Amino acid sequence: MEFTRTHIDSLPHLYKINLINSCSGYKSANLIGSISKDGQENVAVFSSVTHFGSNPPLLGLVFRPLTVPRNTYVNIKETGYFTINHIQQSFIEDAHHTSAKYEKDISEFSKTHLTPEYLTNSKVPFVKESSVKMLMKYEEEYHIKANNTLLLLGAIEHLFIEDSLLHEDGFIDLAKANTATINGLDGYACPKENNRHGYQRPKQ
Amino acid sequence: MEFTRTHIDSLPHLYKINLINSCSGYKSANLIGSISKDGQENVAVFSSVTHFGSNPPLLGLVFRPLTVPRNTYVNIKETGYFTINHIQQSFIEDAHHTSAKYEKDISEFSKTHLTPEYLTNSKVPFVKESSVKMLMKYEEEYHIKANNTLLLLGAIEHLFIEDSLLHEDGFIDLAKANTATINGLDGYACPKENNRHGYQRPKQ
Repeated sequence: MEFTRTHIDSLPHLYKINLINSCSGYKSANLIGSISKDGQENVAVFSSVTHFGSNPPLLGLVFRPLTVPRNTYVNIKETGYFTINHIQQSFIEDAHHTSAKYEKDISEFSKTHLTPEYLTNSKVPFVKESSVKMLMKYEEEYHIKANNTLLLLGAIEHLFIEDSLLHEDGFIDLAKANTATINGLDGYACPKENNRHGYQRPKQ
Repeated sequence: MEFTRTHIDSLPHLYKINLINSCSGYKSANLIGSISKDGQENVAVFSSVTHFGSNPPLLGLVFRPLTVPRNTYVNIKETGYFTINHIQQSFIEDAHHTSAKYEKDISEFSKTHLTPEYLTNSKVPFVKESSVKMLMKYEEEYHIKANNTLLLLGAIEHLFIEDSLLHEDGFIDLAKANTATINGLDGYACPKENNRHGYQRPKQ
C-alpha cells in the first residue's frame, strides 16, 4: 500500500491519526505526574518522551496546540516541576485511561488504581506503581511553527530505579521491568526480551 | 537505587550514557537514508524519530551537536529530502552496525547487507528490506540551547507499507512486522503482540 502526501491529507480524520501515529515506530509509554499551584493532582499518558542528551540529562515531550487548555502543561509552568513514570504491563489499562478528557478539578488518580506518591519532599506526585520514575525540572520550550505544537524540555533532578533492573554498566533492563511501548494511538506491547549489540566500530 | 542530579553529573561517561539513554523508556528504531549532492549514499540508525503531528504529517529527529560533521544532517540540508525506514528483527545487526563511525566517502550500505532502493524517482535511498518506509521533506529545525543539539522536522511526502500490516482503521501493526524498539544505546527488542485499548472517555 502507498500513500502520497495529497492522499494522506485527504484521509478521514480517524484513519489519518491512526496511520500517522504508527509511522514513527514504537513510542515510549510514560505517565506524567503534575500538580497545580492550588494542589490539584494530575496524571496523564504521554507517548512523546524523547531523549535529548545525557550531559546534562535532558528529556523532551511534545504538547499539542495550546488552543485548548492542557492541564499538564499549565501545571508544569505553575510549579516548574513534573514527574516521568514508566508504564508497565500490570497497569496499562489504568495508564491508558488517563487519556480521557476529565475536567481539571478531577484527578485521574481518583478515577484509576494509580497511586500518587511524594518522594524526597517533592511538590509533584510520582506514580507509586512505576519501577522507573524521575523528578523533572522545567528547562526550556520551543514553539513548533510547522503545526503550532510545543516541545518542552526538562532535566532529570532525581531518578528512582528498582535495583533488579539496573545492570552494572548503567543499562536499565526495560524488558525485565515489563515496560510497555506504544504502537499508534491505543496499541500497547511489552517486549519479553532484549538483545544488546554493543558499541560498533568500522569494519576493515 | 536512586540518583540525584549531582550524582548523575559525576557518573563515569559510559555508565551515564547507558543510564540516561534508558530513562525515556523504549525508543523508535529507524534507519535514515540520505545522499550527498555528489551522490554519496548514507544510511544511519536513529532512535529519536518522534511523532509531532498528523495534520500535516510531521516527524522529528534529534541530532547531537554539529561540532563534528554529521553526514546525515549535511545530506538532508543539501538535498532537502531523506527517508525513514523501520528496523525489523531480521536486520537488527546490520542496522545497528550503521552506528559505526565511517568516513563520509564510505556508504554503510556497502558495509552491511542493507540494500539501497529508489522508489518513485526519489533522489534519496530507501532501505529495501524495510516493510514501512517514508520519503521525508525537510521542513524546519530548532537549535536546542540547553545542550546544543538540533531538532529537525520533516513532513511525510510518500509512505509505503506492506499490505498485511495495515488494519482497516489505518493502524499499522508493528508487532506483526517484527518491528524493533530500542532500549538504551544498544539494546533491541521486538514485541510479539499488541493490545489495543481504544479511545477513552471519562468514567461517570
